[in-house]
Amino acid sequence: MAREAQDDAALLQRIHAHGEIGATAQGGVCRIALTDADRQGRDQLVAWMRELGLAVHVDRIGNIFGLRAGLADDAPVMTGSHIDTVATGGRYDGIYGVMAGLEVVRRLNERGTRTRRPLVVAAFTNEEGVRFMPDMMGSLVHAGGYPLQQALDSVDADGRRLGDELQRTGYAGEMACGEIRPHAFVELHIEQGPVLEAEGLAIGAVQDLQGISWQEIVVTGQSNHAGTTPMHLRRDAGYCAAAIVVFVRELALRFGGSQVATVGALTLQPNLVNVIAARATLTVDLRHTDEPTLQRAERELAAYLAALAAQQGVTIEARPLARFEPVRFDPRLVGCIEAAASARGLAHRRMSSGAGHDAQMMARICPAAMIFVPSQAGISHNPREHTAPAQLAQGATVLMDVLCALANEGPG
Amino acid sequence: MAREAQDDAALLQRIHAHGEIGATAQGGVCRIALTDADRQGRDQLVAWMRELGLAVHVDRIGNIFGLRAGLADDAPVMTGSHIDTVATGGRYDGIYGVMAGLEVVRRLNERGTRTRRPLVVAAFTNEEGVRFMPDMMGSLVHAGGYPLQQALDSVDADGRRLGDELQRTGYAGEMACGEIRPHAFVELHIEQGPVLEAEGLAIGAVQDLQGISWQEIVVTGQSNHAGTTPMHLRRDAGYCAAAIVVFVRELALRFGGSQVATVGALTLQPNLVNVIAARATLTVDLRHTDEPTLQRAERELAAYLAALAAQQGVTIEARPLARFEPVRFDPRLVGCIEAAASARGLAHRRMSSGAGHDAQMMARICPAAMIFVPSQAGISHNPREHTAPAQLAQGATVLMDVLCALANEGPG
Repeated sequence: MAREAQDDAALLQRIHAHGEIGATAQGGVCRIALTDADRQGRDQLVAWMRELGLAVHVDRIGNIFGLRAGLADDAPVMTGSHIDTVATGGRYDGIYGVMAGLEVVRRLNERGTRTRRPLVVAAFTNEEGVRFMPDMMGSLVHAGGYPLQQALDSVDADGRRLGDELQRTGYAGEMACGEIRPHAFVELHIEQGPVLEAEGLAIGAVQDLQGISWQEIVVTGQSNHAGTTPMHLRRDAGYCAAAIVVFVRELALRFGGSQVATVGALTLQPNLVNVIAARATLTVDLRHTDEPTLQRAERELAAYLAALAAQQGVTIEARPLARFEPVRFDPRLVGCIEAAASARGLAHRRMSSGAGHDAQMMARICPAAMIFVPSQAGISHNPREHTAPAQLAQGATVLMDVLCALANEGPG
Repeated sequence: MAREAQDDAALLQRIHAHGEIGATAQGGVCRIALTDADRQGRDQLVAWMRELGLAVHVDRIGNIFGLRAGLADDAPVMTGSHIDTVATGGRYDGIYGVMAGLEVVRRLNERGTRTRRPLVVAAFTNEEGVRFMPDMMGSLVHAGGYPLQQALDSVDADGRRLGDELQRTGYAGEMACGEIRPHAFVELHIEQGPVLEAEGLAIGAVQDLQGISWQEIVVTGQSNHAGTTPMHLRRDAGYCAAAIVVFVRELALRFGGSQVATVGALTLQPNLVNVIAARATLTVDLRHTDEPTLQRAERELAAYLAALAAQQGVTIEARPLARFEPVRFDPRLVGCIEAAASARGLAHRRMSSGAGHDAQMMARICPAAMIFVPSQAGISHNPREHTAPAQLAQGATVLMDVLCALANEGPG
């Protein structure tokens, strides 16, 4: 018990010390990719990696890898996440997975444990995509899904080039992107959703990641006086927008399972109390872990929009904003996570991720999976992001067990 | 026929000439109350009144009255409307009723017709309420519904006082407000709605004016990630707002009759594609010509909001923004209008006004009613506001017949 308490304290101490870099008055962290705060966070990470005896490699997109040698020269087992944040970030999103990777190394060092395969702790560049597009950039380039040069040429709102910012901050590395091809990749992350907390569970074994369909819908009706225009002569863009919101909600409830549907953005024009809206612009966010089901949701929405337009005498235009297919993680790795949680007596479940993560990019080149720990009230991208210390420690312990099991696997 | 064609031309000519004052590049009129454009419009009106032999009186709130003497000294019959516009005004709202009053006088003069009672053509100050609150100010003060001093002390967004602007433009008159107490008041106006056009009718005999209930509703839920938050754990302010929009629409259709219900303004926070809205602010505009029915609509809405809040785990606050009881016009005057339209062979119907008009204020102190002519596509407060020349002429003819009938009535 004494040793476990020490372990927990070491992990928390590192998370909190790192959270001071870019700390905001609200208790959160603002460490947008390749700003000075991000550079300081990287410098701290590299210093800790070296203290733990890891060999540090930085690749040409700025991904940082800390390598712990194995007994054999087989492909390494990799863990990691990201240390950049959104502007109103919390102290756990991303950073937790990287700090837990360091914690696993610290525990193995302390206990003198060697693994057959090398272990790698990774911090991927620009996961959040706040300043430079696309998001999950570092892992995507590592997996060969996006050309390096195009990523380096990405420009922020002030016209600054990502490649120049890498040079400026000292993280334009020498290693070729994708040079490390892991035996397996496991990412530990806070859930950023309310499911584990609501069900009183400690560990989520993430088996897949939802496909995403974003559309922008524009309804064009007729602006008219709210008092003088009888209901049957209206072409009310505002009503149509509301009907669409209700439709997608009912669609999600009807489909059930992992289906979610959200209208998060909606604006009316002219947006006046006594004028029927001439125009409504709204977004629809549909997600499902099953691609055919996601396509069915898209088709049902399209049919509804056509029927609504005809019925209400308005025109409705929809255009795609983003579209990603679902990702299925490696079932064997998911089983390893479940087994590790069970062995530690931790309540767990299989689940889906509704958010994007670096692990989905790594899944393109090696078996990959994720471990989730609870997020209090599901709050994330917010200074109020919180996971209890004991839950953070439990996640790190499961990560350690899974990494050790994978790292002791033989070739083939 | 030749004389009628001449009559029509005279009315149109005056409307179009007056529409040049404050004309906008879009073909509309911007003549906000007590601006220089409004002063020019008033000067032109007064000049035309004098040309027609009317005795011009201006009262202390700037209302302009042109008096045509009668054979007897009985209470006069009054018509009129307003000549101020909104910023994006058309060429007919208000001004049509005043110009048609002049046209009636011109025709009576030309034909040498005398009436028993005097006739008065009125232009009321600041009907639109764009710059100074409240709207329908001149007629409201005339009817004793608002203290003169308070109206004079009304201040615009730039800090200018209405009383000072009356002085500056030369329309701070001497006559006491409310000095002229009419035998009857009849206002001719464009419908500003689509009903007459949709039904192919020339004349609306306006029997009442809808009561208005405006509320602002604020829904407070919980902002969460659109991907990671299962449907059953959401407290989605955006969905609740949409459900309210759909509810009020269905309420209006269920109540039927003159019931209208509109959500014209709706904003979400944070209004992002992948974030469940934490907060929604919307307005609800309910109108009905029957006060108990309007109150029933308000009660049903309140009950729905309470049930929705409980069901969805959100808080919903509603606060009144404006509340006016319905106005019932004088049934005998409405009958006069119908009779005049029938005698001229013009298709007509009884109807309600969904917008506010000076006639509703005059109804406080004398029998009052309104005549509507069609508005193309129901468009108003817009440069595209349009009524066909023949329809404008028909309205003026009915106005003349009604005014003559009323002005030949004896005392008691």
